[in-house]
Amino acid sequence: MRKGRVTIPTDENYVEGTLKIAELWGADAVRDCDGTHLPKNAKDLAEKVYNTYFVVRGDNAWADKHTDELQSVLLTTEYTLATGEELIIDLRKGYSRDQLGVNEENPKKYWQVFDRTVDKEVTAWEYLGDGNVKIATTPYHEYSVNFFAVNQWDSTQMYNYITNNWNIEKHKVMEPRFQATFEHIKDNMRKWCAENENVNVVRYTTFLYHFFLVFNEINKERHVDWFGYPMTASPRAFDAFEKEYGYTLKAEDIVSQATYQSNFVNPTKKFRDYMEFTEKYVTKTVRELVDIVHAEGKEAMMFLGDSWIGTEPYGDYFKDMQLDAVVGSVGGGVTVRMLSEIPHVKYHEGRFLPYFFPDTFFEGNEENAIAELNRNWVTARRAMMRKPLDRMGFGGYLALAAKFPKFIARAGEICDEFRAICDASGDNKPYSGLTVAILNSWGKKRSWMCHMVAHELWYQQVYSYQGVYEALSGLGVDVKFISFDDIKKTGIDKDIDVILNVGDEGTAFSGGEYWNDEQIVTAIRKWVAEGHGFIGVGEPTAYPKGGRTFVLADVLGVDKEKGFTLSEDKYNIQKKAHFITADIQGEIDYGEGMKNIYALSGADVLDIEISPRFTRNVNVGEVKLAANEYAKGRGVYIAGLPYSPENARLLLRALFWSAHKEDEMQKAYSSNPVTDCTYYPESKKYAVINNTNERQTTTFYDVNGKATCLTLGAGEIAWL
Amino acid sequence: MRKGRVTIPTDENYVEGTLKIAELWGADAVRDCDGTHLPKNAKDLAEKVYNTYFVVRGDNAWADKHTDELQSVLLTTEYTLATGEELIIDLRKGYSRDQLGVNEENPKKYWQVFDRTVDKEVTAWEYLGDGNVKIATTPYHEYSVNFFAVNQWDSTQMYNYITNNWNIEKHKVMEPRFQATFEHIKDNMRKWCAENENVNVVRYTTFLYHFFLVFNEINKERHVDWFGYPMTASPRAFDAFEKEYGYTLKAEDIVSQATYQSNFVNPTKKFRDYMEFTEKYVTKTVRELVDIVHAEGKEAMMFLGDSWIGTEPYGDYFKDMQLDAVVGSVGGGVTVRMLSEIPHVKYHEGRFLPYFFPDTFFEGNEENAIAELNRNWVTARRAMMRKPLDRMGFGGYLALAAKFPKFIARAGEICDEFRAICDASGDNKPYSGLTVAILNSWGKKRSWMCHMVAHELWYQQVYSYQGVYEALSGLGVDVKFISFDDIKKTGIDKDIDVILNVGDEGTAFSGGEYWNDEQIVTAIRKWVAEGHGFIGVGEPTAYPKGGRTFVLADVLGVDKEKGFTLSEDKYNIQKKAHFITADIQGEIDYGEGMKNIYALSGADVLDIEISPRFTRNVNVGEVKLAANEYAKGRGVYIAGLPYSPENARLLLRALFWSAHKEDEMQKAYSSNPVTDCTYYPESKKYAVINNTNERQTTTFYDVNGKATCLTLGAGEIAWL
Repeated sequence: MRKGRVTIPTDENYVEGTLKIAELWGADAVRDCDGTHLPKNAKDLAEKVYNTYFVVRGDNAWADKHTDELQSVLLTTEYTLATGEELIIDLRKGYSRDQLGVNEENPKKYWQVFDRTVDKEVTAWEYLGDGNVKIATTPYHEYSVNFFAVNQWDSTQMYNYITNNWNIEKHKVMEPRFQATFEHIKDNMRKWCAENENVNVVRYTTFLYHFFLVFNEINKERHVDWFGYPMTASPRAFDAFEKEYGYTLKAEDIVSQATYQSNFVNPTKKFRDYMEFTEKYVTKTVRELVDIVHAEGKEAMMFLGDSWIGTEPYGDYFKDMQLDAVVGSVGGGVTVRMLSEIPHVKYHEGRFLPYFFPDTFFEGNEENAIAELNRNWVTARRAMMRKPLDRMGFGGYLALAAKFPKFIARAGEICDEFRAICDASGDNKPYSGLTVAILNSWGKKRSWMCHMVAHELWYQQVYSYQGVYEALSGLGVDVKFISFDDIKKTGIDKDIDVILNVGDEGTAFSGGEYWNDEQIVTAIRKWVAEGHGFIGVGEPTAYPKGGRTFVLADVLGVDKEKGFTLSEDKYNIQKKAHFITADIQGEIDYGEGMKNIYALSGADVLDIEISPRFTRNVNVGEVKLAANEYAKGRGVYIAGLPYSPENARLLLRALFWSAHKEDEMQKAYSSNPVTDCTYYPESKKYAVINNTNERQTTTFYDVNGKATCLTLGAGEIAWL
Repeated sequence: MRKGRVTIPTDENYVEGTLKIAELWGADAVRDCDGTHLPKNAKDLAEKVYNTYFVVRGDNAWADKHTDELQSVLLTTEYTLATGEELIIDLRKGYSRDQLGVNEENPKKYWQVFDRTVDKEVTAWEYLGDGNVKIATTPYHEYSVNFFAVNQWDSTQMYNYITNNWNIEKHKVMEPRFQATFEHIKDNMRKWCAENENVNVVRYTTFLYHFFLVFNEINKERHVDWFGYPMTASPRAFDAFEKEYGYTLKAEDIVSQATYQSNFVNPTKKFRDYMEFTEKYVTKTVRELVDIVHAEGKEAMMFLGDSWIGTEPYGDYFKDMQLDAVVGSVGGGVTVRMLSEIPHVKYHEGRFLPYFFPDTFFEGNEENAIAELNRNWVTARRAMMRKPLDRMGFGGYLALAAKFPKFIARAGEICDEFRAICDASGDNKPYSGLTVAILNSWGKKRSWMCHMVAHELWYQQVYSYQGVYEALSGLGVDVKFISFDDIKKTGIDKDIDVILNVGDEGTAFSGGEYWNDEQIVTAIRKWVAEGHGFIGVGEPTAYPKGGRTFVLADVLGVDKEKGFTLSEDKYNIQKKAHFITADIQGEIDYGEGMKNIYALSGADVLDIEISPRFTRNVNVGEVKLAANEYAKGRGVYIAGLPYSPENARLLLRALFWSAHKEDEMQKAYSSNPVTDCTYYPESKKYAVINNTNERQTTTFYDVNGKATCLTLGAGEIAWL
């Protein structure tokens, strides 16, 4: 059995067991966990010893002495109706009093009151104290107040505390923009390094600012945005911004009609400035801590979660922190690629499921624990074939897992399989049939971070789009993330075969008003017409204008009927057989799907849902899938694409068809849709994986298209 | 057996049979039909003799001698992509060459070329002749040309001709705006009156301009809009408009991004001007014909269909024609009310189904013919209880119907029932529990004409809204149609209890940018808060602004999530029992329904569809029905409401609940949802109708709320 690349949790009460499992799994690293402490001799257990580290929380001794130097959160109140000419709004209504206080510093400077009915700022208001704002109002208008709250309780700790009924000290959150606090933070770091000689990896959980997570009056989650910046904002930040960027940032620039400029909202110029400003500050500040850590001969590892805001791993400033490693939780293929492709670190680690907690590891539940382990592994493995993580690990209480010997054995096999994948691929780039670019407003900066609200959480409005990325994470194609600004600045890169545009109208993922940009529209039309592919999912290129809903309706072959051209007959409702649907058996799952999509007359309808109330032979039916020839290029429309092996295959076929590379598809390819094939040209190795728990037969095609029949056991990976 | 109020078709070959059936049905009028001629002794058959009359079609002798005086149609070409710097568009592409030529008069004055990609007019173009326009283009922009076509073939005749494989003369269409043609039209009218002494009712089919109906290259319908004005437009009309209104009308003012300012599009100021201009012209011109008819002692009857554009029966100028009667086809309750409420005529006639054509009246199909008769009658009857037509009639070949004796007998019963309804209600206003106002951009002008594309045709995007009007047409409430401009000008009428706003975002029926008007928004909020009801269906009050999608989300208790606030948790997903749903058994049918509707925290969710993929307990589910207390008033949201007796009851309950009149509902009321009750206070009569073909029991409540059990036979009407 080989060794390395694996991290396991340990505990001062479970030293012998740790040694035994480390041996079985070939683990070379140990880590502490929530509620546990590393054994004193941790260094003897593994080469690498990780310890969690909090930068801004957990030091209430300091926080209580410097109550003016706590962090803020930028919020807006509930929209409140005025029925008379005066309205008093209690800022704290709807927010957790345990978590949030009011930051009363200079309200007239930092707060804003908005009449949301006419969408204008109001100046006739005063702060009455005790969280109450009095506003001179127009009757029957709605108002909200943008204000700074004080962050009195770390969001993650609060979540764990409430979820687990803890009764421990509530961590206040320090604001490093205050010089004294920052000096104290650095002192803490130095002291901690000195006191923790046995630790050689500082596992930051995480740095300065939490993702947007605030609770309501009854301490239930009110807002969660894994990418949100409201918890970075404060009077000090705004002051510093003004100094650096030469203009005043207003609360509404971030509140932005209560959207808080979420990941789904097209970022404004001001918000982009603010993000950059925050990234520069966070990375520069963290660098000072990392330097301390490095000076002590330790490595710095960032947990991608909790207080990671402002690091933007795919941004321009991430590299400045000089981190050694990132670690994150693996939910599926998308999170694998999101972690494994992060640049400027030496290694990437994924924490796999299940977490060794009593909710899974209770007596009689071993089979379920193994099932979760397998499910997590198989989902992630597809993506690792394309770009593996460097390390894997588990979290929780090892002693609990140790009670399930079959689980321990299966995890050991997975550790071996993981190492085999790393060895086979490593830095070898796998063979790719073509290059796909996801086009949205964020581009590279939010690579693999599209259509996510909160990490791994299922959202009804998201899964039909997220499936596109999950499918891509394991397909034999290269994937890039490009932005509209990229196209404006440098055109469309030569290596791109197909552009994908995915999302709801007006969002940052479909692009919203970027589709009002003539330069972008003509560049893409020309590029497609010259022989490339364009695939839209959901409401691609949507920006109602000039009589079209989808600006590139001509490319996609479909448009969305918003009710204004119902009087025009739509006859194109006949479903046709096609290369794209050749592997489909039964119904295609479009997830939430789309309403009111119809095919233009030249397009091929590949799937259409005809209303059972159907009473005419025109203007009926929802087109779900269409293909369209566009000069030398091709367009494809898909109404939605939740992840499934069948849908991944559908997407693969759409990619190859739209790129006019149908003949190239069956190279380094496995015919059975529940399998995937990867080829590593440097090592000349093929891997064919079975993504199911059943035996599968498939036809394997080598890179020259030569076919061989193959049978794979449940979840098997075959190296050829 | 009583007599009167009934019109039957007749034929010179079926005189004896006509007399017999006239006797059986109590018919007092005869009419001719497509392909038939009145008998010479028609006057001896009935008191009233109708004859169809075409004003602008059917005189090819004149039309062929005055080819410059034919009608025009304002069209735009297909959107066409430029790949280089020059593009030639063939105007006729996609249009029927049989129907449409090119009106080559002064293209540079009357036509326009649009770059639809940047949505701007282009001036660098020339007309090459032979239908081709050359445009200087920006590569990869789309263009279309607005132009006048010549209307070479009457749309209705063309439709009948193609549908029935006729081989007769194709009717050209004369433009009365040319003085010589108009004088000729009047001469025709005079001559015809002199030649048709036996006719005492001129049944105009219809007047000057056809509703928008044009065909494509293979003579299939391309555009149909029963309310559309493009066939009224011509160079002469535009010249006259400029003279009268002092500004130049451009083709795009009507083409309007290929929407042609359909019934669903918020009418612009210019389009309203153009409508008024056309109405004034049409009614003034028709009046001259009507005067000729009246001078001959005949009545003038308008068929509401075919060339009825510009008459606008609910507009300000309709009365100027001094018509005696209107007649129209009855499709259901909505068309009954649309016809029966037309002001300024002496009587209203409905043509019932089935049409006596061989497609229904073939051997062995008698039961189906009777079923269609009963279905049509029962659907229409609900509405007639509220506001009856004055006359009923049938069309087609009477000899065919006569072959089905059971059909003849059943139709005779219906004629009697019709007369009984007329006698009982007549001009007596039935009791109403409350007054409902439908609020949209058209208001009174398009009363009962909402959410219609082409007469009676089913559209997938329409039926879920049209059901609201169909339900209302037979409920025991008063119905008004009001516009946003009405509210701006005179506020909300005192008699209104509940306002209904129904439709998709941005359409003339939900209101679009009217919801950006602060005066309207505050007026309605205040009015509801003071104790009234507001019901929204579909995407009511939609105008994304200030962080709301539905401007009156606060009133409705729901909003639409467009993806920008997914990070805000939505917890209100628990379904509650309610007065509104008290009669519901099983699932409610919302038709096409709505996506992404969520309830605000204070609202009561009455129905929600939870995704079967449901994986969390927040942010899931589509709210379909909600009720909301709003100060002293109430709001209700319904995702869609196709017509069914159950949905009509749901709406009735929503109306009474929202108006705080729950206690008033059970007055002049029948408990069984498939029955309706009407009370006529003047005659002190109650009518309880059974809308099904099965026996029904119900509890009847008189106007004081006194309950009686009642059993009704299939389709029975019980007079109490």
